[in-house]
Amino acid sequence: MADATGHGGRPVLGVDSGGSGVRVALDAGDGGPVRVRTSTVPVATAGRGMDARGLLGQVLPLARELLAESGTAAPCAAVCVGASGMATLGEELRALLPDALHRELGAPLLALASDAVTAYAGALGARPGAVVAAGTGLVALGTDLTPGGGWRRVDGWGHLLGDCGSGAWIGRAGLEAALRAYDGRTGGSAALLERAEALFGPVAGLPARLYPRPDRPAVLASFAPEVARCAAAHDPVAAGVLRAAAGHIAGAAAAACPRRGSKGSHDVADVALTGGLFRVGEPLLGPVREELRKQLPYARCVPAAGDPLDGALHVAAALAAGRLALPVDGTLLCVVR
Amino acid sequence: MADATGHGGRPVLGVDSGGSGVRVALDAGDGGPVRVRTSTVPVATAGRGMDARGLLGQVLPLARELLAESGTAAPCAAVCVGASGMATLGEELRALLPDALHRELGAPLLALASDAVTAYAGALGARPGAVVAAGTGLVALGTDLTPGGGWRRVDGWGHLLGDCGSGAWIGRAGLEAALRAYDGRTGGSAALLERAEALFGPVAGLPARLYPRPDRPAVLASFAPEVARCAAAHDPVAAGVLRAAAGHIAGAAAAACPRRGSKGSHDVADVALTGGLFRVGEPLLGPVREELRKQLPYARCVPAAGDPLDGALHVAAALAAGRLALPVDGTLLCVVR
Repeated sequence: MADATGHGGRPVLGVDSGGSGVRVALDAGDGGPVRVRTSTVPVATAGRGMDARGLLGQVLPLARELLAESGTAAPCAAVCVGASGMATLGEELRALLPDALHRELGAPLLALASDAVTAYAGALGARPGAVVAAGTGLVALGTDLTPGGGWRRVDGWGHLLGDCGSGAWIGRAGLEAALRAYDGRTGGSAALLERAEALFGPVAGLPARLYPRPDRPAVLASFAPEVARCAAAHDPVAAGVLRAAAGHIAGAAAAACPRRGSKGSHDVADVALTGGLFRVGEPLLGPVREELRKQLPYARCVPAAGDPLDGALHVAAALAAGRLALPVDGTLLCVVR
Repeated sequence: MADATGHGGRPVLGVDSGGSGVRVALDAGDGGPVRVRTSTVPVATAGRGMDARGLLGQVLPLARELLAESGTAAPCAAVCVGASGMATLGEELRALLPDALHRELGAPLLALASDAVTAYAGALGARPGAVVAAGTGLVALGTDLTPGGGWRRVDGWGHLLGDCGSGAWIGRAGLEAALRAYDGRTGGSAALLERAEALFGPVAGLPARLYPRPDRPAVLASFAPEVARCAAAHDPVAAGVLRAAAGHIAGAAAAACPRRGSKGSHDVADVALTGGLFRVGEPLLGPVREELRKQLPYARCVPAAGDPLDGALHVAAALAAGRLALPVDGTLLCVVR
C-alpha cells in the first residue's frame, strides 16, 4: 500500500497496536520491501487509556531493529500509530509520543489514528467510500474526501449497545439459539446446541463460565465460526443469524458511505470489508453481498487492498510526502508536527 | 396466600432474599395478619454463592422481632427461604442453614427455593400452570403437578445469553435504537435517542459509562420504562421493541406451560405474569396478552395472587401442614428435615 517512491527516499514507520499485540512496519524509502516486526504482548490500557510508556517501550526497540536490518539511518520522515480506542483514550499518548518519537527516531511528523482509520487507509487508501471493519466488534467508517467532509463513523458501540453483525453479535445470537433449543422455545437450533456443548461443555453451566470473565465479547465471538459452519451445513437458524448479521453489516456500510450525488462523491462508491470476522467466508459473505446490493445499490464491493498495518504505513508515507488526503479531524485522525 | 389455619396453629416463616434486600414474613398461625420485616441490605454473594452467614445474620434478628411482636413463641413449624440463584449457589446454604434455623427458631422443616419457585408459589399457589417472572432478568417456570413431572424451567440465562423480553433486554434494544438514530442507521428512533441523552448524557460517552459498571444489566433495564413511555406515545420503533419482547415473554410461557392433554394437565392452564417489569403497564401488557392468545391459545392469563414473599410463606405453610404439592427436585426446590 505505501508508495515507496513518493516520500523523498526517507524511511516511514507504521504501527498497529491492538488486542493481540503490536506490529511495526518500515518502508525504508529505498524501493526495497516493507519490513515488519511483531510483538505479541498487547499494550496495557488503564482507566484513562492506553499506557503511552508501554507502547513506546514496545515500538522503539522494534523500530530500531527494523532500521538496523534495512541499513537505514534515522531520521524517519513520519510515523503513524494506529490503535484501538484511540478516539477516546489518546490523552497521555498525545502528550508523550510526539517528543519521544522525534527524539528517538528523528520523526518530525506523527499521525495518531483510530484503528478504524488505519483499517480504512489499509483497505481503500486515499479513495472515497466506506470500510466495515469487523472482528469481535464492528465499526464502519466512510468519507467522501471533500474538504470539511470529515469521517462518518457508524456503530462500534460495543457488544451491549451495538457492534451489530460483529463476531460477538453472531456468536451471542448462536448461543441464544442453542439455549432456545435446550429450553424447547421457538427459534432454537439443535445443531447449534450440539456445537455449544462441544465447545463450552454442558450449557447449564454456561452462564457461570461466561459472566465472570472480563473477555466476554471475545468468548461470544469465539462461537461465530460454529454458526458459520452450521449455516454452511444448511441449519436454517444459523443461516438466519448470518442473514440478520449481513443486514446489519450492509446497514452500517450504507450509513457510513458517502451519499450519491453529494458534493465530491462519485457515481460509484467503493465499499470494502476488512477484519477477522470475514474469514468465516461464504456463509457470511454471500448474504453480505446480497444485502449490499439491496441497501447500497450504487456501491461497488471491492477487496480490501491491505490491513490496518498497511494503512498506518500508507498514512505515514502520505504525511511524509505532504499529500495526506484522509480527513484529519483531531479525534479519529490527529497529526502532530 | 398462606393458609393461616392449615398448619396446626404453629408459626411459619417465609424469606425472600434478592438484589434489593431481605424480607421476612411471619404467619403466626393464630388467624392474625401476616407480619413482614424488611432489610434493604442485599446478602453478599461470593464466588461459590450466597454468603450463608450473611443471610442468617439478617434473617434471624428479623424473625425474632416478628415472633416477639406477634406474641408467638418459637418453635416455628417450618421455614422457606427463597433466593435468586439458589439453584446454582446453594452449597454453603444447604450445609449451614438447616442446623442454624433449627437451633435458633426450632424449625424442624426447611425449604430452600429458587426465587423462580417462590414467584410461582406466590402467583399460582399449588395450581398447575406457568409463571413468567420478569424484572431485570426473565425466567419462566411451569409444572403440571403430576408425580415425577417436575419443573419446566425456561430462559433465565442472563442478559448475554437470554433473558429475552426482560427489562435488560427491552432497555438494551431501546438504547440500540437510540444509537441507530444517532448513527443514521435504519431502525433508529429519535424519541429514544432524546430519552437516552436525558437519562445518560451525550450518547458518545455511553459506552465509557456503561461497560466498566458491574451492574450493567440493571443499567440497561433502567431504560425499559422509557421504551414503554415512547411506545405509549406511538413511537413505532419503541412499540416494535415491546412487541418483540411480548413475543419472547409468551414464548417462554408456552415452553414452560404444561401441554394440553398431557397426563395430569387441565384443559385450561393458568399463566401468571409477575415481577417489576410488568409495572410498565399496558404498552407491554397489551402485546403480551395478544401474543399469549397466539402462542398459548388454551391458556388463561390470571393475575398473580401474590409476590415471591407470599410464595415463600405458602411453601412453608404447606410444608408444615404436610401437603406441599409443588415438585421437590433438590435443585429448584429442596426440602431439609
